[in-house]
Amino acid sequence: MAKITAVSPLAPAAFPELPEIGGVTFATVAAGVKYQGRTDVMLAKLAPGTTIAGVFTTSSTRSAPVLDCQAKLGGTSDEGAAILVNSGNSNAFTGRSGIAAVKAITEATATACGLPEARIFTSSTGVIGEPLPFDRITAHLDTLAQGLSADAIEAAAQAIMTTDTFPKGAHATVQVGAKPVKIAGIAKGSGMIAPDMATMLVYIFTDAKIAQAELQTMVSGHNEKTFNCITVDSDTSTSDTLLVAATGASGVDVAGDGAFAEALHGVMLDLAHQVVRDGEGATKFVEIEVTGAETDADAKTHGLSIANSPLVKTAIAGEDPNWGRVVMAVGKSGAAADRDLLSIKFGDVIVADKGWVSAGYDEAAAEAHMKGDHLYIGVDIGLGNGRATVWTCDLTHGYIDINADYRS
Amino acid sequence: MAKITAVSPLAPAAFPELPEIGGVTFATVAAGVKYQGRTDVMLAKLAPGTTIAGVFTTSSTRSAPVLDCQAKLGGTSDEGAAILVNSGNSNAFTGRSGIAAVKAITEATATACGLPEARIFTSSTGVIGEPLPFDRITAHLDTLAQGLSADAIEAAAQAIMTTDTFPKGAHATVQVGAKPVKIAGIAKGSGMIAPDMATMLVYIFTDAKIAQAELQTMVSGHNEKTFNCITVDSDTSTSDTLLVAATGASGVDVAGDGAFAEALHGVMLDLAHQVVRDGEGATKFVEIEVTGAETDADAKTHGLSIANSPLVKTAIAGEDPNWGRVVMAVGKSGAAADRDLLSIKFGDVIVADKGWVSAGYDEAAAEAHMKGDHLYIGVDIGLGNGRATVWTCDLTHGYIDINADYRS
Repeated sequence: MAKITAVSPLAPAAFPELPEIGGVTFATVAAGVKYQGRTDVMLAKLAPGTTIAGVFTTSSTRSAPVLDCQAKLGGTSDEGAAILVNSGNSNAFTGRSGIAAVKAITEATATACGLPEARIFTSSTGVIGEPLPFDRITAHLDTLAQGLSADAIEAAAQAIMTTDTFPKGAHATVQVGAKPVKIAGIAKGSGMIAPDMATMLVYIFTDAKIAQAELQTMVSGHNEKTFNCITVDSDTSTSDTLLVAATGASGVDVAGDGAFAEALHGVMLDLAHQVVRDGEGATKFVEIEVTGAETDADAKTHGLSIANSPLVKTAIAGEDPNWGRVVMAVGKSGAAADRDLLSIKFGDVIVADKGWVSAGYDEAAAEAHMKGDHLYIGVDIGLGNGRATVWTCDLTHGYIDINADYRS
Repeated sequence: MAKITAVSPLAPAAFPELPEIGGVTFATVAAGVKYQGRTDVMLAKLAPGTTIAGVFTTSSTRSAPVLDCQAKLGGTSDEGAAILVNSGNSNAFTGRSGIAAVKAITEATATACGLPEARIFTSSTGVIGEPLPFDRITAHLDTLAQGLSADAIEAAAQAIMTTDTFPKGAHATVQVGAKPVKIAGIAKGSGMIAPDMATMLVYIFTDAKIAQAELQTMVSGHNEKTFNCITVDSDTSTSDTLLVAATGASGVDVAGDGAFAEALHGVMLDLAHQVVRDGEGATKFVEIEVTGAETDADAKTHGLSIANSPLVKTAIAGEDPNWGRVVMAVGKSGAAADRDLLSIKFGDVIVADKGWVSAGYDEAAAEAHMKGDHLYIGVDIGLGNGRATVWTCDLTHGYIDINADYRS
């Protein structure tokens, strides 16, 4: 049923060479949950002492596995942990049967891995409203547990894809007290067909040593400036999940270390950008920087209003430096703005200056910028020091093709 | 530059036969503000004693004429009034020159009509960020004032069109104390091309006698359940304007009359629906009724979240009864919802029942409903008695064609 989709024109040239992370092993299998002829389940096993932080969709209709993860997060354990993810079925809006499916999978994973059930985290992504055939997954758990390997993270990135057009990975190595700490992450999201939603799943692993509470604070903070600053179509999945696992295998305590925090932020931002680059039908990657707002929160509200505006996004698809639509999006956002203080840039070209078209506006230069595939829109509100950057893609015929396709 | 666009497939068969309203005369002219070979300015003159109520865009970047109208609204006057509207240029984001243009037009209209400037209301719709060539309008004001006629409301509806594919009119006659009171209204909106925005302008006239404060309360209340319950693409114009003028020419005092209030609501709803029917690229008119929310406000929040979701709108374009996307839109709306109490209908077909696909779900019947051009989506939240109905259209390739078109 999934159409063969060409790889996004905004995809990176290749999947990066991710480092092995001490204390983390992976296995994948083709369980036939829905897709045929490809892997669709991944297991990541985490060594004893691993701390896990997470951020989840705020949807009030979130899926059974998300609710289960949220209940298990927090606290620390000397025991290991595992993450089990399937693609092809999101186990969302499946009522009691959904809860039973999560229970069956976490029990089987716990048994196969020799771990307590409270330390098993699961995600599901794919069609919603259909019962998850969990027995197809549980039947393979022993095989998965026996096939764990430290160098299978790329295979894991492939197994969690739904209609993503490329697997997504990012990494960093940072020196903390002259010792290396490694971070490697994978993500899926934004390529999709009916009836899926653009679920985003992200799993990041590090051999850093860090307490769960501190890791959670860091991840939640970074999330506000990375994954919560991207948008493809303003719609929010019932399954969005970000998990960060720190195994401590490096022996390096990163508590309070700025370099580690920065490196983790970099990996999260890289993966967030890759999700945008795989946005349905996307042909342009767009960075929107808002400065001069009354507060940072106001700047983000303006930025997301611009990034979510269908009129702005179609203008970008048409390579049109249509600053009037940017004005409109700022005006409707609900955050403070004054028409006569607003300035707008496309690339380096000052388009509007304090409420009117710039005296020296060079439309040809603005048009030339719009023809690229990495666009910059700068908006200065002129009221204060609040700032935010958000990222999005254009809205094209490809989006309609992918999403108006009748389920077959 | 405007492409020749076929009339929307959702357009009414013909412009309705609108009644003449005592105390209201119209004139139109081809002033060449931007368009050639068509009328683009309309003047409506209102008899002494007319009360005027209005509702405007809440955009913080609203246009100069909107700000001028807002400053003039309220209060009553024994003097007459006039409404002057041009298409082709919205006089938005034009700084001091925009204010000067409004001043020049209101002065010239006041002089030509023998009215105080404080009683002249203007609107402009069309390209933004370009200075309004107001002299092209003021040059015609004497001609307009001399050509006023009671039966020219259809011509007025045509003059205010931008890329609307059909002129919009609606009317009602209601008996109050056995005497007829007439209402006639016109609107433009939602057909547009770059770099316009989907500005909505609405002018409604009645010969009812009613105090300004009471009329304003009635219009503001009705607006919440009519124009504020429609959406094409979630974007908000800097120029949206609704003016309702009551001349009193019928001699019938409608204070506290339920039938008049209902008739005015009907005309407003009819015009609101016509705006949706002319939504860019629309092929389906969609009614979304939300019941069982905690409050009416929550029901409207859920309804607009569904109506604005690109994933829901593309599914409708694909004639796909994709209830999973409706669940998603309810979940992300921010209003209270419980996944396991949610029920969804497409037409008469119960698709989801209390959090899961309905036991008797007949997908063929749901698909058959989706093939029509007037669709109904019913959502019961299962929490309380709050209810709201909103209206929207589908998101199609036509929307992309219209809005991604490069300005030429």
